[in-house]
Amino acid sequence: MKKLLLAYSGGLVNSVSIHWLKYQRQFRVVTFTADVGQGAPQEDLADFALELGAESAHVTDLKRRFVDEYCFESLRAGAQYEGTYLLAAALSRPLIASELVRLAREEGCRYVGHGCIGKGNDQFRFEASIAALAPDIQIVPTRRMWDFRSIDEVTAYARRHALMIEDETLSSAFSVDRNLWGARISGGPLEDPSVAAPEEVFQITRSPLTAPDAPVEIDIGFDSGTPVSLDGERLSPVDLVERLNRISGEHGIGRSDQVENRIFGMKVREVYEAPAATVLHVAHDQLEKLTLDRESYQFKLQLSQKMADQIYQGAWFSELREAISAFFARIQRVVTGNVRVRLFKGHVMVIARNSPYSLYSRQMATIQQEGEFSTHAVDGFLTFLADTGRKTAKIQRREANRPQLGSHRSAPPPPP
Amino acid sequence: MKKLLLAYSGGLVNSVSIHWLKYQRQFRVVTFTADVGQGAPQEDLADFALELGAESAHVTDLKRRFVDEYCFESLRAGAQYEGTYLLAAALSRPLIASELVRLAREEGCRYVGHGCIGKGNDQFRFEASIAALAPDIQIVPTRRMWDFRSIDEVTAYARRHALMIEDETLSSAFSVDRNLWGARISGGPLEDPSVAAPEEVFQITRSPLTAPDAPVEIDIGFDSGTPVSLDGERLSPVDLVERLNRISGEHGIGRSDQVENRIFGMKVREVYEAPAATVLHVAHDQLEKLTLDRESYQFKLQLSQKMADQIYQGAWFSELREAISAFFARIQRVVTGNVRVRLFKGHVMVIARNSPYSLYSRQMATIQQEGEFSTHAVDGFLTFLADTGRKTAKIQRREANRPQLGSHRSAPPPPP
Amino acid sequence: MKKLLLAYSGGLVNSVSIHWLKYQRQFRVVTFTADVGQGAPQEDLADFALELGAESAHVTDLKRRFVDEYCFESLRAGAQYEGTYLLAAALSRPLIASELVRLAREEGCRYVGHGCIGKGNDQFRFEASIAALAPDIQIVPTRRMWDFRSIDEVTAYARRHALMIEDETLSSAFSVDRNLWGARISGGPLEDPSVAAPEEVFQITRSPLTAPDAPVEIDIGFDSGTPVSLDGERLSPVDLVERLNRISGEHGIGRSDQVENRIFGMKVREVYEAPAATVLHVAHDQLEKLTLDRESYQFKLQLSQKMADQIYQGAWFSELREAISAFFARIQRVVTGNVRVRLFKGHVMVIARNSPYSLYSRQMATIQQEGEFSTHAVDGFLTFLADTGRKTAKIQRREANRPQLGSHRSAPPPPP
Amino acid sequence: MKKLLLAYSGGLVNSVSIHWLKYQRQFRVVTFTADVGQGAPQEDLADFALELGAESAHVTDLKRRFVDEYCFESLRAGAQYEGTYLLAAALSRPLIASELVRLAREEGCRYVGHGCIGKGNDQFRFEASIAALAPDIQIVPTRRMWDFRSIDEVTAYARRHALMIEDETLSSAFSVDRNLWGARISGGPLEDPSVAAPEEVFQITRSPLTAPDAPVEIDIGFDSGTPVSLDGERLSPVDLVERLNRISGEHGIGRSDQVENRIFGMKVREVYEAPAATVLHVAHDQLEKLTLDRESYQFKLQLSQKMADQIYQGAWFSELREAISAFFARIQRVVTGNVRVRLFKGHVMVIARNSPYSLYSRQMATIQQEGEFSTHAVDGFLTFLADTGRKTAKIQRREANRPQLGSHRSAPPPPP
Repeated sequence: MKKLLLAYSGGLVNSVSIHWLKYQRQFRVVTFTADVGQGAPQEDLADFALELGAESAHVTDLKRRFVDEYCFESLRAGAQYEGTYLLAAALSRPLIASELVRLAREEGCRYVGHGCIGKGNDQFRFEASIAALAPDIQIVPTRRMWDFRSIDEVTAYARRHALMIEDETLSSAFSVDRNLWGARISGGPLEDPSVAAPEEVFQITRSPLTAPDAPVEIDIGFDSGTPVSLDGERLSPVDLVERLNRISGEHGIGRSDQVENRIFGMKVREVYEAPAATVLHVAHDQLEKLTLDRESYQFKLQLSQKMADQIYQGAWFSELREAISAFFARIQRVVTGNVRVRLFKGHVMVIARNSPYSLYSRQMATIQQEGEFSTHAVDGFLTFLADTGRKTAKIQRREANRPQLGSHRSAPPPPP
Repeated sequence: MKKLLLAYSGGLVNSVSIHWLKYQRQFRVVTFTADVGQGAPQEDLADFALELGAESAHVTDLKRRFVDEYCFESLRAGAQYEGTYLLAAALSRPLIASELVRLAREEGCRYVGHGCIGKGNDQFRFEASIAALAPDIQIVPTRRMWDFRSIDEVTAYARRHALMIEDETLSSAFSVDRNLWGARISGGPLEDPSVAAPEEVFQITRSPLTAPDAPVEIDIGFDSGTPVSLDGERLSPVDLVERLNRISGEHGIGRSDQVENRIFGMKVREVYEAPAATVLHVAHDQLEKLTLDRESYQFKLQLSQKMADQIYQGAWFSELREAISAFFARIQRVVTGNVRVRLFKGHVMVIARNSPYSLYSRQMATIQQEGEFSTHAVDGFLTFLADTGRKTAKIQRREANRPQLGSHRSAPPPPP
Repeated sequence: MKKLLLAYSGGLVNSVSIHWLKYQRQFRVVTFTADVGQGAPQEDLADFALELGAESAHVTDLKRRFVDEYCFESLRAGAQYEGTYLLAAALSRPLIASELVRLAREEGCRYVGHGCIGKGNDQFRFEASIAALAPDIQIVPTRRMWDFRSIDEVTAYARRHALMIEDETLSSAFSVDRNLWGARISGGPLEDPSVAAPEEVFQITRSPLTAPDAPVEIDIGFDSGTPVSLDGERLSPVDLVERLNRISGEHGIGRSDQVENRIFGMKVREVYEAPAATVLHVAHDQLEKLTLDRESYQFKLQLSQKMADQIYQGAWFSELREAISAFFARIQRVVTGNVRVRLFKGHVMVIARNSPYSLYSRQMATIQQEGEFSTHAVDGFLTFLADTGRKTAKIQRREANRPQLGSHRSAPPPPP
Repeated sequence: MKKLLLAYSGGLVNSVSIHWLKYQRQFRVVTFTADVGQGAPQEDLADFALELGAESAHVTDLKRRFVDEYCFESLRAGAQYEGTYLLAAALSRPLIASELVRLAREEGCRYVGHGCIGKGNDQFRFEASIAALAPDIQIVPTRRMWDFRSIDEVTAYARRHALMIEDETLSSAFSVDRNLWGARISGGPLEDPSVAAPEEVFQITRSPLTAPDAPVEIDIGFDSGTPVSLDGERLSPVDLVERLNRISGEHGIGRSDQVENRIFGMKVREVYEAPAATVLHVAHDQLEKLTLDRESYQFKLQLSQKMADQIYQGAWFSELREAISAFFARIQRVVTGNVRVRLFKGHVMVIARNSPYSLYSRQMATIQQEGEFSTHAVDGFLTFLADTGRKTAKIQRREANRPQLGSHRSAPPPPP
């Protein structure tokens, strides 16, 4: 019998997959569950997997690696998909895939399975990552293989085989993917983008409407683009994110409600929560504005966008993503310092920032005095601007007077 | 005597300029003041200018043109300088410049003057615009010509000549530029970016801390990217922006506190308020996310950034800015529909959106069912991805085994 | 019986398709052949189609529309896929698709068929274009439907049914797609990218090695980015391109030999010939360098790249492609003037250019004299540059002295 | 007396500068001349400098560092300014500046001087580099300080003081800057861009018209983007470039004649020669096309453009340039292999390429067979494309039927 390692999240589809792979497809099934901060203990899933037919079941705490190697890498790159989504789910997939590969080697599995929906993003992320790391491993995408076309049919199978799994169609009308970097909620009532999200879909943030009446201020310390402290207290990556999630979640920070373009181009409506990630991105951007020169800041925006696209599309283990990371590793050297933010009822506002590498010069900036450098310099520069303006204006006058395009065009005379 | 048209804002430097140009440089001075929604009546400035020595003084209401031709053009292009600044001051300068040119022709002035600081952005914006529209007009940049190097020296001149002007060094420690699209506050206590802005600098928004305890929801209607209605009521551009400023300013929306890169690259710390503009940009972006296809949405972000740079740098009347506007005029055709936002204590959140041109398809997006299109399609696509992954993985293995770069490199064999 | 309009090029696969669609799938088949300058008379294909079983056969001369609406649009946009390919085949597909749609309406066909290979680019171009123009029409991609997996199997079918068609496997080891804008040759001996292309694959250019020993100079006139004359003689688009193809093909201009990325990401090796198109792109670029300001020229390069990608991917009838065209329509207003090129043994070299809208100023540029504008202006600018340099140098010194990243990082002190 | 280190090229202005700095400004003058492959022995310049009044004179051979650290770095990044200029002069400036700084330290000079024209690019390159490396050193830009406004006035000074220097106004009507990476020729007859360059301006290439009648083929080996061999023979960087300059210069390769935008935006007409550099860029690009995946290749084009801008503007020693180099260092790992080119009468043509890291797959690419991956995959993908097409078409129909923009716009109904 062939041995298969299944990425196991504990959800309905995944749970049914264990049974289906074993009894319908004759695989020996081993499961792997990663703890990336889902907010519920993952250990129980091992017992559950065994009950459903797995021959062994692994649960690994990957929180430290997740924050340190994935979330903070994405933060340093300023990656925000379509300007909004901070990529929580997308960042966890390549890490889980790399662990699947490691474990598959250890367990001697030539097959790795997953239960991602066949029109979603996660299948791309898992499969591209696995193919990059272990091209010899064969991927078994349960959901694209079996004949169930709807959740109802999967539920029916579970009932038919008396699988003691929670009934998702009853327990929850919507789908949640949550980790330390944020939560993604979709489905159910959210599938109509013209209807507001009900309060109950939110997982890790209080509503701004019921958040505390007093704001809180936090000072975030960065070293070369990496968050290292809160209010002067040095914290490990996981501690820092957990604490910041708690504080900013309490103040209703980091909710968003988006229509976004999936990998295939299809549109979906997603509700996101990313309390710590939102605060960190806002603060990090502000520190870059203080420490990067104009050319660097404005150009790096294009790499930030591409980084987000690459992460979103599952291309973490690609030459391009790694080259972009090399760019950011270099440009972030000076992004060291502190940013003070105020959190209040859903709103995060930067109120102060400083850095030993600040490029701000009060003497140059002050409006109380003319700049030493300015007077003649600007005269010269503006002389040049005006000259171009003059040439362009001349052109525009000619344009205004010439016959409409297409109506009559005569060739200009050749050069001498 | 040479006749000069002076852009007159009523500030200390401008007021002294009238006197200085007349008595120190023997100009006949005519003043022009634009009403772009400064929030105070501008008509008084005419009398004031005459008292200071102007031979005539014009005040013109440009609010309608400002919103319609400049602010909404910038909105359709999604222009946000360095991801944040909505360009209120920058948008008003080319309009004022175009009116200066028109009036200079009418009044027979061959000189146009301004009192912008010699290290700031506005001098570029005025002068580049005037040069583009009327290259024959000679620009008189008072502040780069006279010998006063500080506000104190200008104040001393005013006292020496008994000019009855308000003493800016006393009345205000900071500088404000305000119009219908927002306010920019700088100087004084803001010149230390590591110190929080005091509440008194804010001009048009209540503090989120004291904003109403109940949120407000507004429905904003767009037609081809242009805002046309609030809560279903069709409004003129000026009425719409004024009403939205009032509502969202009341709820503390649109404040930001930034370090930004000036045209010359110098960094400054600016506090901005843009209540209506912030809400409109958020809503407009969301409608684009619903109606533009992925390629269009993701690519247009680069043109949005360039548009913001062009506006910021004073290049409104440039071939490139107009070409970018032509792009947006085309791509915005489908950005029609409604977006519902919730405003609450400084935070604006999109809660619903719809459009007759929506590209969202519930049937395609639903997580309840597999997609008709998906199963085999994704298999094929992933086969391809995996193949690339395999090739790349092979490369990476070779990389891992080969000697360090530089230590020893041997030429690969030539092709047959 | 269902009626189907088949895009018919006369090739083996297409010819067999007529028979197969009629006898294996019971379609009434009408064929459509476009003359876009394939270099051989297309009229004969009508008779041939009828012989093979078509019930009617159309041949239309689309050369004028092809050059005027497609090739010159692409030229104005400076579209070169991956910096090289001038898109001859890619540009013809949307035009043919639009004509297929028009004719399908006229003929009452609800089906449109093509015989493009299932891993190539052209299927995307045809199908995306048809879907954009006539979403109700159903596409019949013969080659993805039948069971023949190789050319050999298609040939065997032809023999079995005694179809009097030329045997491609015998007559030609490689595949050619040719029109007025250029030729693409692939397959056969070209499938090994490490082996040089044999001379016999080239269709429309003489070898540089045997080209005339005397160079020729041509003066090309442009009006708003559109070529309008050769050596001062005003010519229609088709005449201009045909004449220029003849002259520059004779001189061996426009060959290239590339590995390129297909729509799916797969790599192929292609040999291209584009004699007129190459000369026109070189000359057009040079005229832009003379007439566009720096910001416009450098920024438009990004739109040129995207335009090429859009055309390559078959997205001619997309919102984005049309928005990019709107950008170029505006920015090309000043690209009027003349460029003189020298053609010689495969090499095209610009030797002179002029324009009524030239932004070149001899007085400013001359190295015989210092510029009026320069001395103090540059001093000021360099003062600023040096200040930034000083700050950055300070940073770099600090960097050099601080502990290695990761080894020990302490949080910087919070701001006061 | 203050001690100054002067960058000394031996030209008229520089030579006069020695005398002027010593006798008019009382500097002790030390000169530095770099040998970067100007093609003439530079050692004589030391004697000449001493005769003119320098107290000591250094000449250093920097050819190895120039090619290895600057030219090949630029090549790996694919840097071509405005798509054409390969940056020969621009690349030498930061190297010379870094050597000036090193020597100034050694000689105890607090001043570094140069004789660059006050409207040109080189002053920016020298001064920005020096400011970045040694912000305490004061720059003395002779030509922006003295009163001579033209070459004639400088010549008159030289005659007045009986300086035995060659008379540039007689000896040469044009200006040449030449090194191992190429030559830039400007001025004199070239200042009219509508007149062809006379043959005598070219320095290092034969005219294509008189080049050998037989082509030559060369095989160029690359290791991680760096050229390492010619025809299988491993060569040092300098030897490789020198040999390739000889061969390709003989065949007339690498000439171009451009109008380009200077740093200030001013246009100039330049004639360039870059025989080896042209061949290496063409070959390197082709190897990237074989070894980089599509996403990497297409995205890196933007970094190539920015790299060229940074080098052109003198920002070699900037955070951004170094971050871009870090990107390329990573992405070039696989750009290893060989490219065979044919050189003939001014034209370079790639004819073959191979690589151990090739991403080309003959089996996938062949047109003889359908792809394993394709049939269903493309069906699915095209289903999706068609669906988007359908939506867009619907939009376009609505657009066609609605009233003109602006004439009458009614707000769409709000969402429920």
